[in-house]
Amino acid sequence: MREDVSEATTKTTAAPAALSRKKSDDFMEWYNEVVEVAELTDKRYPIKGMNIWRPYAWKLMLNIDAFTRKEMERTGHDEVKFPLMIPEALFRKEEEQIKGFGSEVFWVDFAGENKLDERWIIRPTSETAMYSIFPLWIRSHADLPLKTFQVVNVFRYETKQTRAFMRVREIHFFEDHSCFATFEESEAHVKEDLEVASNCLDRLALVHLKSRRPDWDKFPGAFYSVGCDVVMPSGRTLQCATVHEYQQNFSKAYGITYETPKGERDFVHQTTFGMSERLVGATVGVHGDDKGLFLPPEVAPIQVVIVPIIFKGKEGPVLERSRTAVDALRAAGLRVHLDERDRTAGEKYNHWELRGVPLRVEIGPRDVEKKHVAYARRDGQKGFIKDEMLVEGVRDVLSAIQKDLRERHMAFTKTQIHVVRKIEEARKAGAIVVLPLCTKAECGHGVEEALDYKTLGVPLDETSDAKGERCASCGQAAVEWVRFARTY
Amino acid sequence: MREDVSEATTKTTAAPAALSRKKSDDFMEWYNEVVEVAELTDKRYPIKGMNIWRPYAWKLMLNIDAFTRKEMERTGHDEVKFPLMIPEALFRKEEEQIKGFGSEVFWVDFAGENKLDERWIIRPTSETAMYSIFPLWIRSHADLPLKTFQVVNVFRYETKQTRAFMRVREIHFFEDHSCFATFEESEAHVKEDLEVASNCLDRLALVHLKSRRPDWDKFPGAFYSVGCDVVMPSGRTLQCATVHEYQQNFSKAYGITYETPKGERDFVHQTTFGMSERLVGATVGVHGDDKGLFLPPEVAPIQVVIVPIIFKGKEGPVLERSRTAVDALRAAGLRVHLDERDRTAGEKYNHWELRGVPLRVEIGPRDVEKKHVAYARRDGQKGFIKDEMLVEGVRDVLSAIQKDLRERHMAFTKTQIHVVRKIEEARKAGAIVVLPLCTKAECGHGVEEALDYKTLGVPLDETSDAKGERCASCGQAAVEWVRFARTY
Repeated sequence: MREDVSEATTKTTAAPAALSRKKSDDFMEWYNEVVEVAELTDKRYPIKGMNIWRPYAWKLMLNIDAFTRKEMERTGHDEVKFPLMIPEALFRKEEEQIKGFGSEVFWVDFAGENKLDERWIIRPTSETAMYSIFPLWIRSHADLPLKTFQVVNVFRYETKQTRAFMRVREIHFFEDHSCFATFEESEAHVKEDLEVASNCLDRLALVHLKSRRPDWDKFPGAFYSVGCDVVMPSGRTLQCATVHEYQQNFSKAYGITYETPKGERDFVHQTTFGMSERLVGATVGVHGDDKGLFLPPEVAPIQVVIVPIIFKGKEGPVLERSRTAVDALRAAGLRVHLDERDRTAGEKYNHWELRGVPLRVEIGPRDVEKKHVAYARRDGQKGFIKDEMLVEGVRDVLSAIQKDLRERHMAFTKTQIHVVRKIEEARKAGAIVVLPLCTKAECGHGVEEALDYKTLGVPLDETSDAKGERCASCGQAAVEWVRFARTY
Repeated sequence: MREDVSEATTKTTAAPAALSRKKSDDFMEWYNEVVEVAELTDKRYPIKGMNIWRPYAWKLMLNIDAFTRKEMERTGHDEVKFPLMIPEALFRKEEEQIKGFGSEVFWVDFAGENKLDERWIIRPTSETAMYSIFPLWIRSHADLPLKTFQVVNVFRYETKQTRAFMRVREIHFFEDHSCFATFEESEAHVKEDLEVASNCLDRLALVHLKSRRPDWDKFPGAFYSVGCDVVMPSGRTLQCATVHEYQQNFSKAYGITYETPKGERDFVHQTTFGMSERLVGATVGVHGDDKGLFLPPEVAPIQVVIVPIIFKGKEGPVLERSRTAVDALRAAGLRVHLDERDRTAGEKYNHWELRGVPLRVEIGPRDVEKKHVAYARRDGQKGFIKDEMLVEGVRDVLSAIQKDLRERHMAFTKTQIHVVRKIEEARKAGAIVVLPLCTKAECGHGVEEALDYKTLGVPLDETSDAKGERCASCGQAAVEWVRFARTY
């Protein structure tokens, strides 16, 4: 059916870079290779864990940021930008934060030849920077809610092995910091933020688990934390979003008060919500295959690549049709690239498959005659679209790809979760396990140690009630189901 | 004609913050006040020169960035993002840069409790970070041109007085770094960059002077530098964009070579182009007045504010019409805000005039009856637009405002430039002076000292040939006209 392709002019140029590792052989080896070969990042910058965003990855990140901003606007948040540097004294105001971040922060001591009077930390997160100013912005209940966010870089001195997009020292970061008059309102905001996180992950065709983290693993200073974890192909989970209820913990440390309608002063209730470049890492890791990336259409920098199938002396009609197709698709708001390079069709296919373009459109002389275009989805499915239906046809195929990617990840995720009752069963189950537990921290720690797993926490997206079950650790009456997994 | 406004319900709420300074009395005092009262920035952050971007200013900056990105895409540049930190050894590779920036950089020494093996600087500009990697990206002439840019924050330890958006220590920065095979191509790129700068400034309704900086004031390491200076209301100039021809100065220091078509190795020719948040400072300073900001429609976060004129018991038709007007304008892609707050019309007018919204639309009961809306441009011009012409009418008025703002600045700029032949004349002329000079550096320095002015340089946007004139300093044959000014 597409036999004409193999007859097309072949040029003797170097074959495009291909992957030497198979995803199924060793996920992490494959991941480390694909992020460089597909030109997402350059890890040769001479500081460990501080990588270069190459244009293709940065476009992907900007597409994700643009959607996040849209969601923030929809939910009435204002974007701000606070300074990167935080004076030491401010940072020391909230003790839990120092405990949590003290060993991970970078310090600025000198400006030119001058030692600073007070040294600064480079933000690992922005609570201390923002919460020193919020008291100046919030006076009365009329100033509430204050819903703000920023998109910035944060810096953490990672001592573990670094991995592009997944564990780095300079992190592209989104953080929502919001203040409310009542606990009820801040609780409602936790729900709103989780919905935004869900929408963002959905856009990346990623399924996630929402779990309330155990007390020993909540954000430093938080009342409680919720993590959104994505199950990676290795069965390990990657935390991709977190939402924290601070209650009045920070407002008390930073003196963020408001005048109630009755004229009394009270501390505000606060929440935060963070996401990062890990969204790129999860997308790359979950959807890619042995040929390279597979980017979900909704965020792909290039949604459609058009490859003209050229025969010497017969270029005219094919190139003409290719260009009108590009124009029509662009006019419809689609991100399209026309590959007119002097390479063989096969080289071009490999090039764009490696880069994960979800849909390839091929136009050869026969397609022009037959008034249709041929297409190949990144997952190999092929078909034709009639010329007069080009825009609708392409849109439909892209929607189908987006849906299929998400369903594939949903199906995979389900295979990785095992509801069990005993630690011995959990040992055999592998990947993510859900066990009934009582509420004692020592029982949670006991399971962690026995399995060498981390606690994800209590499911918020499924029933958590374990009434009638026995704690997998101590054998007494269980209260909740708790998720455990190996994590990145 | 709009007498119904004064009859509208008045509420007793606190008057909105107004300016205590007049622009005509003291420009800089006015500027320092308006950036805070109009809620662009908060300067109360406890580190000098590191200010908070409030939502309104950040939206303005993002609108400017969006246009810059569009221009970069039009001219075939790819966006990248390099790390913030630069190892000391890399920074030391290019001597001129150390001389130029050595005393202005911030140093990172510690990570947590650990002293770093090699300390890092926080980028004051990105030459050293990028040029250590470019040799890995450029192998042959086929890899050229390499046209890249990034939008990042840079950090400079300013010892002079800081001013919001004009002179700060954490600077929102745009930087274009491009490499070419030949000097001719890099020269053509200087022109292309100057055109982009021009388009960006035009969008802000700002007129600028393009001058080739004298050798003693070029960018550290550059072959030559061109500055784009905006004349501020005080008659001082503010450098808003710079384009640098590096020739092979940096490529030799960093070993950025390529294989020519003949198989020889040669060093690339480089250019850079920078703009910063000063674009916000210039926009605020040039267009504002005693009532507050005046933002050019093309970049204003809110282009149109709709103020319903409410009479108790007659809200229905007015609010309904206001909402359909908002919907129609938004659907046409305009940035519109409907002010439904429970305030008097006068308070709302003041509020939005302070914030520089270029166009106010008022809708009262009589306007609904007459099937039109009333409008007031931020400069006071008033009129009516028929309901059936709403979108086109608003578009026309916004275009006219944009054009008028630029023409006003053009007319002002012209009044500030004085072509003179002697230093004594220059002393009386004030503001910017253009003098004939020979090419000796000491003559340029002589004029600088005599006038207490800085050299802007040789005009690139007007004739620079001073044949037949005498050097204003030494009296010998002049070669070029040279611009001098007091600068920010």
